[in-house]
Amino acid sequence: MTTVLVLGGCRSGKSRYAQARCEAMAGGRLAYIATAQAFDAEMADRIARHRLDRGGRWLTIEAPLDLAAALFETSGEVDAILVDCLTLWLSNLMLAGADIGAARAALADAVAACPVPVILVANEVGLGIVPDNALARRFRDEAGWLNQEMAALCREVILLTAGLPLTLKG
Amino acid sequence: MTTVLVLGGCRSGKSRYAQARCEAMAGGRLAYIATAQAFDAEMADRIARHRLDRGGRWLTIEAPLDLAAALFETSGEVDAILVDCLTLWLSNLMLAGADIGAARAALADAVAACPVPVILVANEVGLGIVPDNALARRFRDEAGWLNQEMAALCREVILLTAGLPLTLKG
Amino acid sequence: MTTVLVLGGCRSGKSRYAQARCEAMAGGRLAYIATAQAFDAEMADRIARHRLDRGGRWLTIEAPLDLAAALFETSGEVDAILVDCLTLWLSNLMLAGADIGAARAALADAVAACPVPVILVANEVGLGIVPDNALARRFRDEAGWLNQEMAALCREVILLTAGLPLTLKG
Repeated sequence: MTTVLVLGGCRSGKSRYAQARCEAMAGGRLAYIATAQAFDAEMADRIARHRLDRGGRWLTIEAPLDLAAALFETSGEVDAILVDCLTLWLSNLMLAGADIGAARAALADAVAACPVPVILVANEVGLGIVPDNALARRFRDEAGWLNQEMAALCREVILLTAGLPLTLKG
Repeated sequence: MTTVLVLGGCRSGKSRYAQARCEAMAGGRLAYIATAQAFDAEMADRIARHRLDRGGRWLTIEAPLDLAAALFETSGEVDAILVDCLTLWLSNLMLAGADIGAARAALADAVAACPVPVILVANEVGLGIVPDNALARRFRDEAGWLNQEMAALCREVILLTAGLPLTLKG
Repeated sequence: MTTVLVLGGCRSGKSRYAQARCEAMAGGRLAYIATAQAFDAEMADRIARHRLDRGGRWLTIEAPLDLAAALFETSGEVDAILVDCLTLWLSNLMLAGADIGAARAALADAVAACPVPVILVANEVGLGIVPDNALARRFRDEAGWLNQEMAALCREVILLTAGLPLTLKG
């Protein structure tokens, strides 16, 4: 099955590219699995607006922590799935004190077993100066390992820069 | 008309590459539109030294804020224009409390209408950890959107890494 | 002689890629020149573990500062050399108050004169927001200049992203 990892920095056009790829890839229903959580009214507004922007083909599922379960449950109902994004999911897991290794393994299994195409979006966060605080350093390490594991698993890996895709694999 | 966006991180060799491209691209006079401002004697010295290094073909124009006007005014006098750099220009605009959206639209119009080749230099700043302070986060967002808009507009986009060019578009 | 520069961000898979390239490139003995220093028992343990992981073909040399001398001395005893990593070496030099320009020139001479293949690993650190503190800004500048000089010198330059190599030169 098609699996695509879309990498890029902040405001590199990852989400827009991933959404367009997903829409071009499959007819019928599409699932948008969001890992963002609405902590306040402003963010709830933004999330609602994005949902409207995506339009009627898209089913939106919120999965801040159990991404593997969300993939399993959604895969029977749609023709392709977009997960946006893994880096925020990792951040949620770390804040919740979850077992990162176990969550990563569960995600890898869910992606590998998914019967419909999956596009994963993730941030590149390791190309700046070493951060001062220990938590940020640990996050950087975990994000890099997560990206490596997903890149090894996915058939295609695309790096976005200023909205332009560069194929790293596939 | 030829339009080139040269992207890269800090000390990636962007300016040197862009200058060499500009010199190879056109005979006659060349304009160097600098967005840097000399806040002290040390910086004034550095700017003067760089101007001498570029040599006699180059006309230097300082445009910390009104880049669109500088492009319009310069384009009749030279055979190619180098703008170095957009990211510092964005920083100047934010410090001045300018309307970023309006400035970006004016720049896009000026680049599209320019009768001579234009090379734009910009920094990639979105590939590190999310910054602690809100202003840095807003700057990162704005820099990413600016780079996306210029990348969509330019015929050619080049990413510099350790002095080596990689074609992202063109 | 083969010279390869392996660039990438934090946890991009640089070291693993460089080690595999080195093992595939030459039969016989291989040298691992480590620039990391064991400041405490935990780090000493980690270094010892990595040494065991590399296995019997690898000779490990610690060279936190005089990398040029380590290259000269090791080159007669092995069939290929891996230096991991230049960015930590630069950090060691800066902490020791060494002459960076002189050290860089000595390294360039040692790499150019090396009679066996050399693989150099270095970090990309210049793609985030400008750091607040002056030392970090100077480090970023120096790291960028060092990477540019080594990229110009090496026959092959590879950028790692999420464990995936991209050829920038060669």
